[in-house]
Parts: sequence; structure tokens; C-alpha cells
Amino acid sequence: MKILTGSFEALTNQVTKREQQAASRPEVEAAVQDIIKNVREKGDVALKEYSAKFDKTQVDEFRVSDATIEAGYNACSEELLTALRLAKKNITSYHEQEVSRGFIDAKQPGVIRGQKLTPLAAAGLYVPGGTAAYPSTIMMAAIPAKIAGVKNIVMVTPPQPEGINPAVLAAAKLAGVDAVYQIGGAQAIAALAFGTESIPRVDKIMGPGNIFVATAKKQVFGQVAIDMIAGPSEIGVIADEKANARQLAADLLSQAEHDKFARPMLVTPSLDVAKAVSAEIERQLKTLPREEIARASVNNEGFIAITKDLDQAFDLMNLIAPEHLEVQVDEPITYLNRIQNAGSVFLGRTASEPLGDYVAGPNHILPTAGTARFFSPLGVEDFVKRIQFVQYTQPALEKVASAITTLARTEGLEAHARAIESRFEADAK
Amino acid sequence: MKILTGSFEALTNQVTKREQQAASRPEVEAAVQDIIKNVREKGDVALKEYSAKFDKTQVDEFRVSDATIEAGYNACSEELLTALRLAKKNITSYHEQEVSRGFIDAKQPGVIRGQKLTPLAAAGLYVPGGTAAYPSTIMMAAIPAKIAGVKNIVMVTPPQPEGINPAVLAAAKLAGVDAVYQIGGAQAIAALAFGTESIPRVDKIMGPGNIFVATAKKQVFGQVAIDMIAGPSEIGVIADEKANARQLAADLLSQAEHDKFARPMLVTPSLDVAKAVSAEIERQLKTLPREEIARASVNNEGFIAITKDLDQAFDLMNLIAPEHLEVQVDEPITYLNRIQNAGSVFLGRTASEPLGDYVAGPNHILPTAGTARFFSPLGVEDFVKRIQFVQYTQPALEKVASAITTLARTEGLEAHARAIESRFEADAK
Repeated sequence: MKILTGSFEALTNQVTKREQQAASRPEVEAAVQDIIKNVREKGDVALKEYSAKFDKTQVDEFRVSDATIEAGYNACSEELLTALRLAKKNITSYHEQEVSRGFIDAKQPGVIRGQKLTPLAAAGLYVPGGTAAYPSTIMMAAIPAKIAGVKNIVMVTPPQPEGINPAVLAAAKLAGVDAVYQIGGAQAIAALAFGTESIPRVDKIMGPGNIFVATAKKQVFGQVAIDMIAGPSEIGVIADEKANARQLAADLLSQAEHDKFARPMLVTPSLDVAKAVSAEIERQLKTLPREEIARASVNNEGFIAITKDLDQAFDLMNLIAPEHLEVQVDEPITYLNRIQNAGSVFLGRTASEPLGDYVAGPNHILPTAGTARFFSPLGVEDFVKRIQFVQYTQPALEKVASAITTLARTEGLEAHARAIESRFEADAK
Repeated sequence: MKILTGSFEALTNQVTKREQQAASRPEVEAAVQDIIKNVREKGDVALKEYSAKFDKTQVDEFRVSDATIEAGYNACSEELLTALRLAKKNITSYHEQEVSRGFIDAKQPGVIRGQKLTPLAAAGLYVPGGTAAYPSTIMMAAIPAKIAGVKNIVMVTPPQPEGINPAVLAAAKLAGVDAVYQIGGAQAIAALAFGTESIPRVDKIMGPGNIFVATAKKQVFGQVAIDMIAGPSEIGVIADEKANARQLAADLLSQAEHDKFARPMLVTPSLDVAKAVSAEIERQLKTLPREEIARASVNNEGFIAITKDLDQAFDLMNLIAPEHLEVQVDEPITYLNRIQNAGSVFLGRTASEPLGDYVAGPNHILPTAGTARFFSPLGVEDFVKRIQFVQYTQPALEKVASAITTLARTEGLEAHARAIESRFEADAK
């Protein structure tokens, strides 16, 4: 992996220029617009046509039966089910701690103010077909929705001649998904956004997908809420001179294997560690099943930056704002206050990133491409909306009435002022 | 205002067909793309060119000096400043109750899990020029950002030959805005998203604007966070048979005067109330300074729906999901549990909607066009991001290692499994 040296400014310029990749292309935009329009107008009929055309599958019934889900679950090994159950337990106990409760405030005489939290009524989860169907991601999306109190969690996934992956069905069952529909692509997003005869309209759509799915999500945004549009995976590692090169290399490769555009990054003050990790990466790459993908990621996207000291390593990492951040130093928790921008942080030499992908409990649906500057991991709050409320007695309103009418008239909004004054006029119907 | 009657289904079909208006047009998209590209490449030079071209103003210095802000503040009447101070006090005390604190969880042996909340580093607030420059909106946007701990709150507003509205400068000073820049339009959004020599890059851009501003916000989304793209104002009123027609009409008109496309809505089981309110609206319209705007809103967008009973009125309103909701009944707080979708709720006969626009404290930047189904009022959480963290001892990792490797290999991610296994191999550099 290439080793970068130089001043902090030079390093910064080299590593922070990457941006969120464009999520779409004009011809895709137009095709997706067309699909959405057709699904809105023709409902299930359009969905069947698109399934035949894009997925080469004739679908008679979109809803996957309980019996099929049960059969998928039973087809999984006990070893896999045990792992999924452990994941569920820890994801649940982590995310339960995110629950907020709203408030009610009666501190001013005659005034009640408050905020109530209400779960979204329905959430939709897109699960890609084939090898990109990750059971772990179903758990990560559905469990926080369940904890938030979402009553209707629906999953859509492309129809497949050989049937849906049993691990996916098992994860859906365990995570508490309420209904699974076999429909994919932009047409699935349109169905979730607007509803059809078979598929219910939802309030929020989550989950990864190809360029058609991502473009459709962008197009329906506003009509429905969406989760972030995630880019290729990233791992940033901050390591001191004692770091274990073999383990660091293995962690960097765990993200490199996801995608040719994944970004493995090591920042360390130790040139020795840098060289050792670089050599280890070459050694370990050779035996990886996904060597080609990982090698492209390492060669084109990855880097090792040498900083003056550990402190500067944190400064650089905060500018990068990585999706995953490993802190491979002694007493790692003492550095927590140095971390300003990152999605999910792994503290200490034992906390290898894949721990967080599966069973630790924190979410693995995370902001990428520097967006951890302002976006957060998926969590319970993504499935809750806040409703404000206020109640005033007549004497309480009287105390603030002149402030309201002054501000309203300053802004040229006379009817606003008169609405308040109507409360103090002789009563009339 | 038109009175709708009929079955619940008939009413639903008539009142829920409205959708978020398209935020843009192709020729605007292209023009805005061009502006953003130029600002990224040429920075301040481009900003000056656009200010000359669009705002007919030659700007030498974008930053508005402290002396100018102070002079604006001093130009305001004591009455206005007192009203702004009251607004600040109540907005602050309301939003302080929204602060969340993250958590740390050490319940499993050898495992630390947690979440830390970090404020965004910088937030940008767009304030339109002319009559649409609302000092109240500056308070509503900047105060929650301040409470969240945002260190750099910057405001941009179009340069104006006669100088910036003193009430706007006073609100900026009182709300804790850190810097004001005179720059407007899509070029201001581009400057906030990417930074120029004079104007700092921010992490989130808020605030209303014309179609160029809204389009620019959509185009830079992802590069930076944005608040919602708000549509025309809405007020929904649920009223029983005892409601005061004069007051209801005044409240409905307070939102109608905002915009020809604003939507005043009354839902009541009482035909008598409906008729009385309709007559009152006609009477009050005649003396409103903004009569033309309010009349267009009332005639084209407004309605009164007659429901079977109060319960059905709540059902209908939940389907509409109005930005503002008044509950004009006895014991209004007992109906709080019936409200599923609304931005800000005003309970009882005294709680006239403009109370919430200015001094009650809840935010007035709210979801419109039915998006209260899934979006929330602006609040402290909009200026905070969550960072997850996890730490495991070696024995704690050992307990979950086989679950991780099982799941990783099920998903075809061998390097993920090997990263975990590297923690249990003979140590090697």
C-alpha cells in the first residue's frame, strides 16, 4: 500500500480530496422516472411487467408466504442460527439504549410545552439479490425499527429463480420483519414510496442497492424518508509503534475485500509499522478468495500516512471522517475525546472491525465518504419523529401577546397579529 | 372556503392528494450546476461576479462588520428588542430539553459499548433578502445549533443596496450567530458547501430560499447536510361545535397570508361552525393588507371538511399530517394520544398558531406537505451526530469469535473472518 510522508498540510491535501461518488447518470435518471410513473399509475401490473423484464421471473404473488420463510429458516445450519441469535441479542441491547422519551414542561404558569415521540407507522427495507444479500444488514436495519415501535416493517428483495437466500429469510424472521415481498430494482422503491394493490406504502426506505435503486431512492425522497445513500466501505486505523502488523493488515483487508472502491487507510507515526503492514498486506492478499477486489482497493484507494506523532494522526483522521475507525494503541479509551468525526470506533488491539459488522451490537449502516462530519449511524432515532405541543391559558397568552404582535407586524404579517388579538376581543360567532 | 361533506373515504380522497411540489426545473438545475462549479473553482472571484450580476451590487467585503451588526441592533425599537429577547428566552428553555447525552454500557464482562454525541463543527443559515427576511426564523435556526454546541454558526443573506434589514441583524446578534456574510442565491449555498477564501465551509445548511437556493441545496446534499426543503405553510384546525368562528377564521388566515399556495384546513363535525367560519373568513379577508395572497390560498387550497364526529376528525388529520395543528376543543390534552402525524400542535382555544411562530419556544421550522409522517421539527438533534464505540478484551472476543467467522463466511467475506482469527494466532510482526 502506498506510504505517504510529508507535512501535515501535504498529507491533508493528499487524503481528503475524495468525495461522495455521484449516485446517478442522466440516462438512469430518465429510466427510473419512467419506472416510478408506471408503478404509480398501474400498480401491480407494472410491477409484474418489470419483474419479467429485469429479473426474468414471472411473479404471481409478491408476498413471500410464511411457509417459505419458515422453510428458509429451517434450511439454515444451527451454527448460523446461533450466530444470528447472538447478533440479535447484542444489537437489541445496544440500540435499546438509544430510546428517547420526549418531555413535558410545565415550569411557566399557565403554560404547558412538550414533545412527544412517535414511531413511523411503516418502514421498508431493500435487500439486494445474489451475493450482496447480507443477512447481517437485515438485522441492523430492522432491529432499531422494531425497538422504535414501527408496527409494519416490510422487506423487498428481487425475485430469483432459485428462490430467496435462506439466510436472508432467517434473518428477516429473527429481526422481526413483518412481511417479505419479492420485488426488486427501482420498481420496488416506487412500490414502497407510493403503495400498490399488494405492497403497502411506507414512511421510510432503507437499504443498499445498485444504481437504479439508489437513483429511485433519491427521486422519491421527500415523498418518503430515506436512509443515507452509502458509498464504498472505509476503514481508518490509527496505530502506535507497538501495533501488530499482521493484525492491522488483516483488518485493512477486511474492508478492502468489499469493493474495488473501498478505502483502507492507516495513519501512524511509525515508519517501521508502515513498512511491516505494507509487506503483510501483500503476503495476505495472495491467499484471499476476493484477492482481485481487495488488491484494486489497496492499490488504488488505500494509503498509509506517516504523521509526526499520535496526536497528529487523530487530527488527520478527523479530517477524513472515516466510516470505521480503529484505535490500535494502549489505553485507547483515553483518546475518545480526540475523535470528532467517525461512524463507528473500535478501541484497542482486540477490537477488529468485523466485530462491529456482526455481533458487538452497534450498527453497521454507517456514514461514508467523509459524511461522518454530519451524518450518524443508523439507529432508533431514524424511526421516530418528534411532535411538538403547547397549551396556554388566557392569562399566560396575555403576558406574551404584545411581543407576538410586535414581531408579526415587524415581519409584515398582519393576520398573525390579528389572530392573537382575536383572543382578547368581545366574544363573537 | 369550500365545505366538503361525504363518507370518510370520500373526504380522504379529496384532501390527501396534495404532494410536495417539485423543488426545481431542468433549466434551473443546469444554471445552478454551473454556479456551483464556478464557485468551487474560482471562489470569491466567482461570488463577486454573481453578486454584481444577480444582486446588482458590488461587494468588496463579504463579511458584515461587527460595527454594522451593532448599528442594526441599535436601530431597532426597544419594543422589538424586548420581543426578540422574550423569544430567545423561550426558544432556549424549550430546546434545552431536547439535549441527549449518549451512553456508556459496561454490562457485559470485558466489553465496553457506547455512543458519544458530538456537535457539528459549523452550521450555515440562509436568510432571504427583502420582505421574506424573517428575524424569527433566524432565532429558530440558530438557537438550537448554539445549544447543541456548534462552534461556528454563520449566516448568509443577499447584499442589498439599502443594507441588511436591522431586525435581521439584531436577531442574528441575539441568537448567537458568529458571522454574517452578504452573499445570496445558489452562489451562497455553493460557498457554504465548499468554502471560499472568505467564507468557511460548513457541515449543514439550513433556511428557506427561492427556487435557485432550494435547487442548490438539493445539489450539494451529501457533500453537506441540509435541513428539509419546506413547502408552503399549512394549518389544520380540529374544532368542536363550541368553537369560536371569529378566532378560527383569524387563525386560518394567519397561515393563508403567507403564500398563495398556503393551505388553511378546518375539520369539524359541526356544519354550523363550518358555515360560520366560512362567513367570518370572507368578512376578515376584506381588511387584510395581504388580502390577495390570503384569498388565493383560501379559494384554491383551503377547505372545511365535515366529519361524523371528533374522532373521525383526528383520523382525517392524521392522514393529512399538517405542519401546524390546532385542537380547538375542551380538555385538549386528553387528545394528545390521538395525534400521530403533525409538526407542531396547539392545544386549546387560546393557543392561536402565531403563538408558536414567535415566542412559545417550540420551533417554527417544520415539516410540510404531509412529511410530518416521517420528518420532525428542527431541533437540537439536527446539529449533533452520534459516534458509536466499542472495546473488547481478548477473552470477550474469544466468546463471540466463532459467531463472527460463521456470519462472515456465510456472507462470502473471508477476509472478515481472518481478521478476527488473526487475534488468536501466534503473535507476529
